This record gives sequence, structure tokens and C-alpha cells, in this order.
Amino acid sequence: MNNKPIGIFDSGIGGLTVTHEIIRTLPHENLIYLGDTARVPYGSRDKDIITQFSLELTRFLLKEDPKAIVVACNTISATCLEAIQAISPVPVIGVVEPTIKEAISTTKTSHIGVIGTRATIASKIYEEKIRSLHHDIQITTKACPLFVPLAEEGWFDHAASKLIADEYLKELRETTIGTLILGCTHYPLLKNIIQEAVGDDIKLIDSARPTAEALKQLLKDNNLLRTEGEPEYKFFVTDSPTISERTARVFFHGAFPGRLEKVTLA
Amino acid sequence: MNNKPIGIFDSGIGGLTVTHEIIRTLPHENLIYLGDTARVPYGSRDKDIITQFSLELTRFLLKEDPKAIVVACNTISATCLEAIQAISPVPVIGVVEPTIKEAISTTKTSHIGVIGTRATIASKIYEEKIRSLHHDIQITTKACPLFVPLAEEGWFDHAASKLIADEYLKELRETTIGTLILGCTHYPLLKNIIQEAVGDDIKLIDSARPTAEALKQLLKDNNLLRTEGEPEYKFFVTDSPTISERTARVFFHGAFPGRLEKVTLA
Repeated sequence: MNNKPIGIFDSGIGGLTVTHEIIRTLPHENLIYLGDTARVPYGSRDKDIITQFSLELTRFLLKEDPKAIVVACNTISATCLEAIQAISPVPVIGVVEPTIKEAISTTKTSHIGVIGTRATIASKIYEEKIRSLHHDIQITTKACPLFVPLAEEGWFDHAASKLIADEYLKELRETTIGTLILGCTHYPLLKNIIQEAVGDDIKLIDSARPTAEALKQLLKDNNLLRTEGEPEYKFFVTDSPTISERTARVFFHGAFPGRLEKVTLA
Repeated sequence: MNNKPIGIFDSGIGGLTVTHEIIRTLPHENLIYLGDTARVPYGSRDKDIITQFSLELTRFLLKEDPKAIVVACNTISATCLEAIQAISPVPVIGVVEPTIKEAISTTKTSHIGVIGTRATIASKIYEEKIRSLHHDIQITTKACPLFVPLAEEGWFDHAASKLIADEYLKELRETTIGTLILGCTHYPLLKNIIQEAVGDDIKLIDSARPTAEALKQLLKDNNLLRTEGEPEYKFFVTDSPTISERTARVFFHGAFPGRLEKVTLA
């Protein structure tokens, strides 16, 4: 049994949707979460800056001596996962690959849609990874930059959010898409209006469960599981905790299992 | 005649609306603009982080030996103008005070409205400054966090933007407000839908012209004006220029007088 913590990081607190699922899947694991709330959002930034910020976050977590690291952010996973793996002595997994595998194994048609931030869509990583696993799958992608601020504002069912979802997603509605990947950790909060906008025939997939399952498999394969005992959780953010507390509770359906603590990156 | 440049900074490129007006008002002045596009937006961050980032920007500009500094951002001006003035050997002006003076001198009723980012509204600086100048003015404020991402997305007249403006501003419509301060440098881009939402009886005031006029007066009073010769402009950003070029052109109505250049803060 390995008591070292799992390090999880995100550009902000969207990665808590993944963390929530990791806690359900691996209830005895110690976790250290780091969200860069002082510089969030990364989704409309350039690759170089996203990489620079992400490596700073990685170095912070590595000082906590984790047994594995989860990049709980689609933008970072899509932009610079390899750069993070290159400086980490412990295994690092992102959210993109587990989600893609889930999408391919469950889609009812050979056409997959992907929505995400500007940086995620611009990276073209979903196309590349899906095609490397499955040549015959058609892929349609769409950046939806306003979804994160809408989710942060808590407008999950607002008429304006519906109009914005329609605007972004109307082109997906009349396609052969069988599965739509919610390629951003905030988007599950907008699941209802996204489903409404694309119609009931398209199955939505988010990153939380596939990533938690992939982490479990990774720990098992490397004999790193912690299978008993009370877990310890630490939640670090780079801006004042009060800025993010409300949204953090929303991501945990009200029962946030700890408190946010401000840290300064080196 | 003083040939030293004027330093202008903002959390991103919204401050270009003010810069545009400074160029019209002071056509011979050399300007150095710095926008922190790698960490924008500041508007929903905490005071401590906004102050820390703003002092980093100030120190960068001071190395360029400016004759004056303009804080072309309502969030920064509202949050930490005094901290910036404390480290600057040259005069520093923000956008809040000039805008307030303009609003007080032109309003037709004794009720002024202010809209801005969460941080600007939370600072309560508009209430404090207006009351210090004029005891009898009633003030109503409202944070409008989605206006910046909507403006950045270029949805100036979109139906969703109208719905969002109605949601934020409907409570201002049936009041005695005579003048509404657009307390964020992005908001002039949404002027039409804001005017529609509050009705034609409310006069909108933004920071650009009052700030440019206040700067002119400051330079005059200190004998710092540059009254002839071709000006030189430098525009620095902290993320890749390509991220902001489109919006920069919008702020200058298409005719952007230079090019954005990436710099790294110390």
C-alpha cells in the first residue's frame, strides 16, 4: 500500500469535477489539488504561456512528493502534457486520452464531436489522438469560449445561456455525430442546455469518470493503490479562497470535503 | 518640451480604448502601452493578487523612464491606485476620478449608476469618491461579469448579449438614474445594447475621454507636454500578440497604429 498523495492540478477549479469523481472511484487515496485561480482561465491563451504556467504548477506539486499527477484540465492536457511528463519523475495522466477512449468505445456512429476552449480546439489534439486510435472516425470540433464564464456566473439554465449554446452548437445538431465530448471541465455544469441544443440523439461524454478510471488502472498497474484508511485532502489555490468557494461547492454538489487554501508559486 | 514617453497599462487590451482617446487628445506624445494579456482578466480576482500583478506592471513601465503613468483599467484603478502611486517617482493617474468628475458635472439628476467588474464594484471606490465630491448624490452599482467575455467574443449586438444586458440592467431602468458610468474599458464596445437595456433617458459615460483630458491637464500643469513632432508608440503584451490582435484592431476602429510585441515581466 502506498500512502503518498496523488497530485491533481488545473488552471482553476474546474478540475474539481474530476477530483469529485476520483474521490468516488478511489475513496482511500490522499489528494493534493492545485488550482491556478490567480491566472485562470488558460483557455484563450497561447501555447507558450500555458506551458510555462503549467510547468510552474507541476513543480509546485512535485515538491509534495506525489505518487502520480493528474492534469485535470482539458486545455493543459491538450496543449502541453508531454512537456509536463518530461519534467516529472512520477506518472502523469491527462484528461484527453481517457475521454477519447471512452468516446470511441461507446459511440453509436462513426462521427464524434468535440467542444472545448479556444486553446483546446486549436491544439487539434482530439483529431490527432482519435485518428491514431481509429482511422475511420469523422471528427467535428467547435470552440465555445463563453461557456466557462457562463458556468462561473452560475447561469446553468438561463435563457441567455440557451441562446449561446444554440449559437455555438446549432451546426452540430443536423450532423451524424453520435457522441459529443465535453472537452472542458466546466462544461458538465451546462450539460442540460448543451443536450437541449444538440438534441437527444447525441450522447454527451465528459472527462471526469474516464479519467478517474484511468487513474485507478494506472495505480493498480504500478502497485501504487491505497486501499484502506481515511484519506487526507489538501486544496490549494493561487488567489484568495473566497473568490472560488461558491463555485467549488457547486462542483461538489454542496459537500466540499475540505477548504481552499492560498499558496504562492515559486 | 518633454520627449519622455507616457506609460499606459491595463490588465489586458481594454486600455486601448483609453489609449485611442489619448492619441486623439495628445497627438505628439510618445506612448508605451503594457497589457498583461497572459493573466487577464483581473476583474474577478482578489485585491491582493490584483495589487501584486499591478505593481509588477508598474515596475516594468518605470524602467522605460516615463514622464507619467496612466492606469487605463477600472479594476486596477479601483483596487490599488494608491499602492502604484506609492512606488512611482512620476505622476500616476487612474480612470476612476476623471470619469467621476465628468459624471457629476454632466448628470441631469442626482442619481448616478456605475457598472463594472466584480472587483471594481466590490471596491466601493465609486461610492466613496462620488460622496467625497458631492454628498447628495445617490449611487447605484452593479457588477456585470459577462460583459468582458462577450466583448472579447465580438458579440456586440448578439441576441444573447441583449438578454444578458437586460438581466444585469433591468433594475436600473425604472430608477431616477441620470448618468450611468461604464466602469470598465471594455464596456464602450457594448454601448448600443447597454443603452437599449437602460433606456434612452440615461446618459452613458465612459472613461476614455475624461481620462485623456485629465492626462492633458496633468502634463500641462507639470510642464511636461510634447507639442510637436512625430510620436513613437510601443505596445507590449505578456501573451502572444496573435491572441489579441483582432480585438486590438476593434478598439482602434481598424486602424491600429503599431504592432503588439510580447515581453516577459521580471
